[in-house]
Amino acid sequence: MTDPATPTAFHAPPRLPRGFRCAALNCGIKPEGKDLSLFASEAPGAAAGVFTRNLIPGAPVVVGRELLRAGRLQAIVVNSRVSNVSTGEEGIRNARRMGATAAAALGIAPELVLMSSTGVIGVPLPIERIEAAMGRLAAALQDDPLVGAEGIMTTDTHPKALSLSVGEAVITVVAKGSGMIEPSMATMLCYVLTDARLDREVLDGALRRSVDDSLNMISVDSDTSTSDSCVAIANGRSGPIDDAAFEAGLRTALTRMAETLARDGEGASRLLRVTVRGAADRAEARTVAKSLVNSPLVKTMVYGGDPNIGRILMAVGKCFDCRIEPDRLVAEIGGVTVFRDGGRTAFEEGYVRELLGRDPVDVAVDLGVGTGEARAWGCDLTPGYIAENAAYYSS
Amino acid sequence: MTDPATPTAFHAPPRLPRGFRCAALNCGIKPEGKDLSLFASEAPGAAAGVFTRNLIPGAPVVVGRELLRAGRLQAIVVNSRVSNVSTGEEGIRNARRMGATAAAALGIAPELVLMSSTGVIGVPLPIERIEAAMGRLAAALQDDPLVGAEGIMTTDTHPKALSLSVGEAVITVVAKGSGMIEPSMATMLCYVLTDARLDREVLDGALRRSVDDSLNMISVDSDTSTSDSCVAIANGRSGPIDDAAFEAGLRTALTRMAETLARDGEGASRLLRVTVRGAADRAEARTVAKSLVNSPLVKTMVYGGDPNIGRILMAVGKCFDCRIEPDRLVAEIGGVTVFRDGGRTAFEEGYVRELLGRDPVDVAVDLGVGTGEARAWGCDLTPGYIAENAAYYSS
Repeated sequence: MTDPATPTAFHAPPRLPRGFRCAALNCGIKPEGKDLSLFASEAPGAAAGVFTRNLIPGAPVVVGRELLRAGRLQAIVVNSRVSNVSTGEEGIRNARRMGATAAAALGIAPELVLMSSTGVIGVPLPIERIEAAMGRLAAALQDDPLVGAEGIMTTDTHPKALSLSVGEAVITVVAKGSGMIEPSMATMLCYVLTDARLDREVLDGALRRSVDDSLNMISVDSDTSTSDSCVAIANGRSGPIDDAAFEAGLRTALTRMAETLARDGEGASRLLRVTVRGAADRAEARTVAKSLVNSPLVKTMVYGGDPNIGRILMAVGKCFDCRIEPDRLVAEIGGVTVFRDGGRTAFEEGYVRELLGRDPVDVAVDLGVGTGEARAWGCDLTPGYIAENAAYYSS
Repeated sequence: MTDPATPTAFHAPPRLPRGFRCAALNCGIKPEGKDLSLFASEAPGAAAGVFTRNLIPGAPVVVGRELLRAGRLQAIVVNSRVSNVSTGEEGIRNARRMGATAAAALGIAPELVLMSSTGVIGVPLPIERIEAAMGRLAAALQDDPLVGAEGIMTTDTHPKALSLSVGEAVITVVAKGSGMIEPSMATMLCYVLTDARLDREVLDGALRRSVDDSLNMISVDSDTSTSDSCVAIANGRSGPIDDAAFEAGLRTALTRMAETLARDGEGASRLLRVTVRGAADRAEARTVAKSLVNSPLVKTMVYGGDPNIGRILMAVGKCFDCRIEPDRLVAEIGGVTVFRDGGRTAFEEGYVRELLGRDPVDVAVDLGVGTGEARAWGCDLTPGYIAENAAYYSS
């Protein structure tokens, strides 16, 4: 599998596209730390979004799907700590109030503001605190995307934003991840901002295809959130762009963000990158890659740095509906072949142990039965994951 | 969901049915501790078996499927520590040698002896050690099923055997579990011995149905072993039995063993028992129950004793292909309703925290859309699971 071509280098530090600004502050939902963010364009733009497939979606996901039908947005308002999920009709009303108060502060129409919430499920959204802080938030808009990224963090260890240029255009991605992460549409929360001028349909297609091979292929813990959302806004400020070049840039940006999110999975110490080749088709390659990044035994093998390659075979073999022929299967860890011709190779154990201690850990499997390829990203399973999640609600 | 009727109490201590004996010893595969077991009937009996669906099955599974076609067995020989999986043609020859040496020691035909191996994958079976010890093993046959259970343990914390009577007949179940456990046919290794007289077809049907609702509904870590096997032998010594009474007894025995295996999952501190009612059908009830016992966030919630009920909703909602209507869903922890009418109830948090600290922890979900029911068993996810699996191969 070849990595997608990098159309240009990532900006360091990341920046926002022309005409976009953002802000974040503490409005009192978290005892301390930023808990409310706003991203705003100076004018409305084409918009597209993909949301969680979880059947008990949060109120902002329900309202967000509705808003995206028009395909135009100008701003996104997000709070962390409370997810506004399983909060009934009151939750839906609060989501709308959250969008409306941001729209009023920006002096724009409410249907141009998408809202998101992330955090604990089943707790009412403290909407009054959000409303009270909105004027102050809109007044604080500035140019650093990492500031906006701060307000949407839950258990993330650092704010996540990146950007790159495609010709004149800039693509900026801001996201949060960490736990309850096996997105099935997008990651927990991810926003794509660009000053490229794009048709709504082009933006929508590029977003769906790119997300499918990037954010939809990460898993921290196989648990699919009720709030996953990935929303893109293109305000057109940098003028027209070649559709294919834009999509290549978007794919590069989202792939890098997928790696960033997986590496910062709850408690994780390293990124696990799994490449599957030679599958019967793309769907089977994806199934096998996901099985490997989700296997607790593979994840603890990475954590322990122990080349127990039987676990790789087990995780491949439990893909019951895939075409697996043990004699054709080749498995590699960090480029070293550890299984071939139906048996473990005579690999040098000390060296493979060392490779398992590096970041990222690359596991590759060639099934030898077809041309299907896929890549998935995960992380090791450590005592830190358990410590964080044994008391997430109360803490 | 009603528990299956208990036809009679479990024997304490467990015992073997008439005409069965067993033995175990250390033959040098493990540095210490028993690593080789033999279960033998005084005469051949009807036999049935179910095996892993993992597509990279161990050599004993391949040979075992062949042997079971004849539907008759007299003995089972099992080693632990090395699983004889992914060992090629040599592995198949070693599995046959293992059965043949046991048959020779017992003075019976080789096709009447089933062999199993459990432990590390991809390492050659030390067949010479097994052959050298077989005479001594056959000479040590005795009446306590826990002795035979000892020789098949890997990371289990205690040997597992139970027995009960159905009329004149005794049903004894010996098993091992612990890790790489989400059986898809049976658990890691499980043997059912009975002195009832049964047709092979009756035994086979009773075994398949009972396993499907018991061993196939446990998951320690969602990882399906390459060696899962459940084999039953009925030697007929206690005479004929009512088919339905036998199946009820078998179901009770296997359900209890399923709970025993889940509670002793690697690193586990408590059994997690999930009951789903009101699903569209039985298949959807099973999917939702499995999703709950497999969710790392539900498992860490149980470990931490923290009533973060959003995780229950998340795990239900990620069953994308099931009929889920959030407003009809009722969730309970230990009999206390924590979610109803689309929202979290005003449950007493301290009390639910206490319930989450008991063993077993009961989580029940009524989907309110049909009559499908299922029960699944799992365990909490603790730092012990990670400690055990970060270095299983080397240790």
